[in-house]
Amino acid sequence: MPAPIDFYFDFSSPYGYFAATRVEAVAAKHGRWVNWQPILLGAVFKVTGGQPLPSLPLKGDYAKRDMARSARLLGVPFEYPGKFPISGVAPSRAMTWLHGKDQQRAKDLALALYRALFVHDRDISNPDVTVEVATELGLERGAVSVGMSDQATKDTLKKEVEAAISKGVFGSPYFVIDGEPFWGHDRIDQVDQWLAKGGW
Amino acid sequence: MPAPIDFYFDFSSPYGYFAATRVEAVAAKHGRWVNWQPILLGAVFKVTGGQPLPSLPLKGDYAKRDMARSARLLGVPFEYPGKFPISGVAPSRAMTWLHGKDQQRAKDLALALYRALFVHDRDISNPDVTVEVATELGLERGAVSVGMSDQATKDTLKKEVEAAISKGVFGSPYFVIDGEPFWGHDRIDQVDQWLAKGGW
Repeated sequence: MPAPIDFYFDFSSPYGYFAATRVEAVAAKHGRWVNWQPILLGAVFKVTGGQPLPSLPLKGDYAKRDMARSARLLGVPFEYPGKFPISGVAPSRAMTWLHGKDQQRAKDLALALYRALFVHDRDISNPDVTVEVATELGLERGAVSVGMSDQATKDTLKKEVEAAISKGVFGSPYFVIDGEPFWGHDRIDQVDQWLAKGGW
Repeated sequence: MPAPIDFYFDFSSPYGYFAATRVEAVAAKHGRWVNWQPILLGAVFKVTGGQPLPSLPLKGDYAKRDMARSARLLGVPFEYPGKFPISGVAPSRAMTWLHGKDQQRAKDLALALYRALFVHDRDISNPDVTVEVATELGLERGAVSVGMSDQATKDTLKKEVEAAISKGVFGSPYFVIDGEPFWGHDRIDQVDQWLAKGGW
């Protein structure tokens, strides 16, 4: 069986959200499983010196326009959130906890959290909002709440983010296919071709 | 007649080079003229706080790999230069001088300078090398040399770079179509679609 595709994303990344809506279809075409791994760009930027897009002169304004335009082209619903960027810690912990129990449901949760932020302008950096989104998927409120704040969950996420950085992951979305890295939603067509051809 | 596409590029930008090999074909498909405008990312970075790709932790290494991989996929000859990044001042001045006389030849010169750097590893930041490349295109050595160092050429380039920054140009390549900005070689398919649909 071929190795899974590693898909790294930050919950505050619009391009990560766009990729999240497409990566499974691309992988399925080529018989691949996708391993969804939330990362925290705040931790990444400590290593790279990077900054959130909205804070960058000129590039920030452009990015805002590009996000909306790319979403329209893709046919993906998107509204620029009232509060942005946000911390991805709460949703990442929720996903990490659920990932340990049910990988498919963890993906569904990730998509629901992305939609909550980027379609319905809900502030998922607030743990109560993240829990609310999880309950709307049928998860049990108390279990999510306890699972997110469990020290083991926090430690697992921390370790996974550190592991991602040590592998060179510096942005969102970021894909690794059989050791080959691809950064950015705008590389998803290359991801598709790489899977089809086995490289070039 | 529809307005020309503005195409901004830095001579030290591999992605600018890739775009330079493709932009005319895309524009011609839609009956558009392309206005080639060299910019100097050094001047841009003073405003944006940006830095050359190779100096960025993690992202620099990735970019080196991505450039070579993208070139292979496009079928564009590319070798990572021995000295990189370089200053684009000399080639930009040569192009600015020639642009005032013959826009088509100025485009040919830009492509020849890009190939000199990114295919043949010639250091076009050295004015003598830039002049040499120009003479290989049939331009007269003395005229190029004098034209490049003419104060009027220097002033024109400076003004054009400042004008670009004031319009929000922050990277290379950067396209503007009827007021709509697109940044990056990986937006050239969107440029194509924008021209076809007149927006979306």
